Amino acid sequence: MITLAPKVTEEHKRQRRADIIAAAKTVFYRIGYLKTTMQDVIDEVGLSRGAVYDYFGNKSELFRAVVDAQDVSVFKLYDDILQARPIWPALVENILDPFERYNENAPLEIGAHIEFVLETRDDNERLTWVVERYQRFVTSFTEIFQTGISIGEFAPLLPADVIARFTLSAMDGIHMGVMAAGVNVIEAAAQTGALRKFLLDNLRPLQAE
Amino acid sequence: MITLAPKVTEEHKRQRRADIIAAAKTVFYRIGYLKTTMQDVIDEVGLSRGAVYDYFGNKSELFRAVVDAQDVSVFKLYDDILQARPIWPALVENILDPFERYNENAPLEIGAHIEFVLETRDDNERLTWVVERYQRFVTSFTEIFQTGISIGEFAPLLPADVIARFTLSAMDGIHMGVMAAGVNVIEAAAQTGALRKFLLDNLRPLQAE
Repeated sequence: MITLAPKVTEEHKRQRRADIIAAAKTVFYRIGYLKTTMQDVIDEVGLSRGAVYDYFGNKSELFRAVVDAQDVSVFKLYDDILQARPIWPALVENILDPFERYNENAPLEIGAHIEFVLETRDDNERLTWVVERYQRFVTSFTEIFQTGISIGEFAPLLPADVIARFTLSAMDGIHMGVMAAGVNVIEAAAQTGALRKFLLDNLRPLQAE
Repeated sequence: MITLAPKVTEEHKRQRRADIIAAAKTVFYRIGYLKTTMQDVIDEVGLSRGAVYDYFGNKSELFRAVVDAQDVSVFKLYDDILQARPIWPALVENILDPFERYNENAPLEIGAHIEFVLETRDDNERLTWVVERYQRFVTSFTEIFQTGISIGEFAPLLPADVIARFTLSAMDGIHMGVMAAGVNVIEAAAQTGALRKFLLDNLRPLQAE
C-alpha cells in the first residue's frame, strides 16, 4: 500500500500538468501569445493560482510546454517517414499535407507561435529553446533526406541540410503570410506546390510523379 | 512674392515630414516597433509633441511612412531590373545580393517589420496596407519574370506569379530565422544559395551560370 501511494500522486501530477497544458493551449490559440496572461490560463483550467504556479513559473514556460507537447506527435510523424519505403510519398503525406491543412485551419496557432518567437529575442533561456527546437527540425529533416540517399531513393543536388533549412524557411515564410494576409491572399496552396517542386527537383526521388 | 510664400511653406513641411520619418526610422530600428512610443520619436526629432502629431496621428502611421519611404528605393531597384538585358544578372544583383546583405546587417530592422505585421491582424486599415504592399511586391516580381519571358530569356516551369509568391515567402522565412535565431545559426547565406537555385531551375534563364 505504501508503495502505491507515490505512484498515484505521480499520476495525479502528470494529469494535472496535462490539464494545465491543455487549458493553456486553448487560451494561447484563441487570443494569441502576447495578450494571454497567467490569469487567463488559471481561469480556463479552473484551478487555484498556486496550483498552476506549482507547475509553471510564467507564461513563457507554459507556451514552451504546449509546443513541446505538440512536437511529440510531429516528430512521431517524422519518425514514421524514416521507416517508410519509398520515403517520398510518406514525406508528402506526413510533412507537406499536414502543412497545407495547418495553413487552412490554424491561423491563430501560427500567429501565437510567431508572437512567442518575437518575444524570445531579449531572453537567453527562451532563445536557447528556440534555437534547439530549430536544430531539432533541421536534424530531423536532414535525417529523412540522408536515409533516402542511403537507400538509393534520393540523389540530391544540394547538401541535405541546406534543403532542410530552406524547406523550413519556406514553411515559416508561408506561415507568416497566412498570419499577416490570409491563406487566400498569398495563395498558400500554390506555394506549397512550389515547395513540393523544389523538393522534387533537389532530392530527385526515384519513381516520383 | 505672394506666390512664393506657399511654396516655401510646402518645402518646409516636406522637410519637417522627412525629419520626423528619419527620426522614427532610427528609433524603430533601434528598439523595435512594439517598444517604441510616439514620445520616443518626439524626443529623437527634437520637435514639439503638437508638431509631430500634425503629421502623424499614431505610431502605426509613422511606421508605414518609414517603410513607404524605404520602398521607393526598393521599387526603383526593381524597375532597373526591367530595363536590364539580360535580366538574370540584374535580378541577382538587385534582389538576391541586397537580400543577403540585409540578413547580415539588419536584424533589428527585420524584427521591427515582423512586429508591425503581427500587430496588424486586429486593425483593418493596417491590414489593408500590409496586403496592398504584399500585392505590390508580387506584381513587381511577376512583372520582372514576365518581361524575361517576353524577351525569350526565361522559360519558366511554374506560373510567374507562383514563383514570385514563393520567392517572397522564402525571403520572409529566412528573415524570420535571422530575427529569431541569428544569421549564422540558420546559415542564411547557404539558404540564399538554395533560393537562387530555385529561381534558376524554375525561370531557366538563358546563359546563366
